[in-house]
Order: sequence, then C-alpha cells, then structure tokens
Amino acid sequence: MTSSVPTSLPKIKYLKRPTSPAWIEQAIANLDTILLDHSHCERKAAGVALNLMFRYPSSAKLVRMLTAIAQEELEHFELVNQWLERRGIAMRSLPAPPYGAELNRHVRRDEPERMLDLLLVSGLIEARSHERLGLLSQHCPEPELAKFYHGLMASEARHYGIYWVLATTYFDVDIVTRRLEELATIESDILSTLHPEPRIHS
Amino acid sequence: MTSSVPTSLPKIKYLKRPTSPAWIEQAIANLDTILLDHSHCERKAAGVALNLMFRYPSSAKLVRMLTAIAQEELEHFELVNQWLERRGIAMRSLPAPPYGAELNRHVRRDEPERMLDLLLVSGLIEARSHERLGLLSQHCPEPELAKFYHGLMASEARHYGIYWVLATTYFDVDIVTRRLEELATIESDILSTLHPEPRIHS
Repeated sequence: MTSSVPTSLPKIKYLKRPTSPAWIEQAIANLDTILLDHSHCERKAAGVALNLMFRYPSSAKLVRMLTAIAQEELEHFELVNQWLERRGIAMRSLPAPPYGAELNRHVRRDEPERMLDLLLVSGLIEARSHERLGLLSQHCPEPELAKFYHGLMASEARHYGIYWVLATTYFDVDIVTRRLEELATIESDILSTLHPEPRIHS
Repeated sequence: MTSSVPTSLPKIKYLKRPTSPAWIEQAIANLDTILLDHSHCERKAAGVALNLMFRYPSSAKLVRMLTAIAQEELEHFELVNQWLERRGIAMRSLPAPPYGAELNRHVRRDEPERMLDLLLVSGLIEARSHERLGLLSQHCPEPELAKFYHGLMASEARHYGIYWVLATTYFDVDIVTRRLEELATIESDILSTLHPEPRIHS
C-alpha cells in the first residue's frame, strides 16, 4: 500500500500514483472539453463543500472553513466560465466520468466513519485536481490558458490541506492516516484506466 | 386572488399579504433563535441557487446570475455566523418550519413548468425574507443588530428581482405573472397561521 507512492511527487502527498502521460495527451488534444468539464468540477466542488455544511451544521470549524472553500470554488467557476465565453464554448452538461461515483461508493454509510470518508474523498479530489491543473499549466500550448491554470493550482493545494486539517480536527491522526492510505489507493486505481472521454478526472 | 394585495406594501410586490404583528412579537422575543435560524436560511439560499445551477447548466444567464446570488448568500452566512459567535450562540441544527416544504409541494414536476415554479418559489422566499429582515431592522431593540438587518435587506430585494428577471427571461411574462399570483397566494396562506417555533419563516 505504500510502495506505489512516487518519490517524485513529494508535495502531493495524498496521491498514491501520478497521472499518466496518456491523460496529458488526451487533455491537451481536447482543451475546450477540458475547460467545460473544469467548469462543472468547480461548481461540483462548491456543492460538495455546501453539502458537508448541511450535513454537519453544528461543527463550527468545518462550517467556517468550508464556507471559504465554497466561496473560492464559485469564484473559480466564474473565471472558468469567462474562459468558456471568450472561446465561444456554449455551456452544456457533460456526462461525468466514473471517478466521483466510484469514490463515493467507498464512503461508509454510518457516522462517524461517513464524515471521515467524505472529508478524505473531498481532499483526494482536490489533490488530484491540483496535480492535473499543474500538468495543464506545464503542458498547455496556449500561454494565457497555461497561466490561468497555474493561478488556480495554489488554491486547490490549500483546499486539500483544509480537508486534511478538518479530518484531523474531528478524528485521531492515526485513524485518518490509515483510512487515507486505503482511499488514496482506491483513487489511483480508479484512474489507472484512462476514461475514453476527456475530463479533468478521466 | 388579487383582492388581498395590501396597498401598504407596494415595494414588495411579490407578497400577497404582509407579515402579522404576531410574528414580529415572536421574533423580537427570541432574537437568538431567529439569528440561528437566519444562519440556516442563508446557507439554504446558497444551496437553492447552486441546485438550480446544477439542474440547468446550459442556461448561461441563469448560471451567471445565480452564481452571484450563491456567493452573496455565503457572505451573509458568514456575517450571521459572526453574530452567533459574538453572542455565544452555539451552531446547531434547528427543526425547519413547514414553510419551505409546503412551498416546494406546489412546484410542478415536469419541465418547463418545474423551472418556472422553482424560480418563482425562490423569488417569493427572498421577497418574504426581505420583508421580515426589514421588520427586524425596524423593531429590533438592539441598535447594532437592527443596523445589521437593515444592511442585508437590500440584497434580499435584489435577489427576488433577479429571480423575477430569470423567470421572464425563460418564460412569457403573462405566464409568469399568472403563476406568480397563484404561488404568492399559497405563500401567504402558509404563513397565515403562526408556526409555534420562532423562525425567519414561521
């Protein structure tokens, strides 16, 4: 469970395995679809933060930190939508890749395990987004768009940090670490087969 | 259906009947509970805007305008939570009054009627919040808190304006006006019996 952590990615400590070059190729060849999917991802991330606030309204620290995340995701949602408009990409729904649903299948249904899993799954998604926006900023052939992705990366990094802080606020750090190992392995396994449709989490 | 529009409330044109003095008394006697419920209302309002964005991702104007509403509701949520903290009111869930669920029962299930009803119900809730925050700002015996309510009123007014604009963007104005008459009557009827628990929409 630990042997697959690549030493080349020390900063993205949540992730078990790095993104494959095949994803980068797929994404760069489909920048418009990636932008549209990215818009949906930002809206979904705001929704996830809000849902957690609905589910745990008495957890003051969680509510305070996730309010900030939800606000930032909505700001990014607006920024990505401005890119869509600038490039003449009409807003439309896109079939989601299996990633989110697969991860959610592993969220345990009873509390307090449910809360821990929801926080860790959200953190993992943010960590993967951080990694992939970073790859887009490195490989995107359009300098302006590359700069935009680079600008968003830092927030995604902060977000997964916040989910980690929340998990260790409400749960013992050993329990968090053990469960994160399991979920991070599942997360990397889901992405080990490239989804045929270009998506942020394909 | 039109005879009950009070001429004394020309600015809150959505509302069929004004709030009763009994509600004001109940609210002023329970300011802490009202603040706590208000916090939940702001979070719920952000959730409603986000859900509409999820449901209609291709409606660019709706998405743009509701992103702004969701952001503003989250800002208000934070401000109300600061008041809770200042007054030492612990965050906790509160059983909701029947208001929201009753209104939602009247949302038609098929599109495009569903979209129209969702926009109008959201607009009505904002209109009622606007009226009630106004009443709180007038009657609250604590000047600082009264000022706070006054400050929020303007946004609620803008929000119901936005829901009206969206309804008339996607639907013929005659159809909107007719349905609004029906829903506004239902909304006032729901509030005609004061809910025993003090709430923003009791």
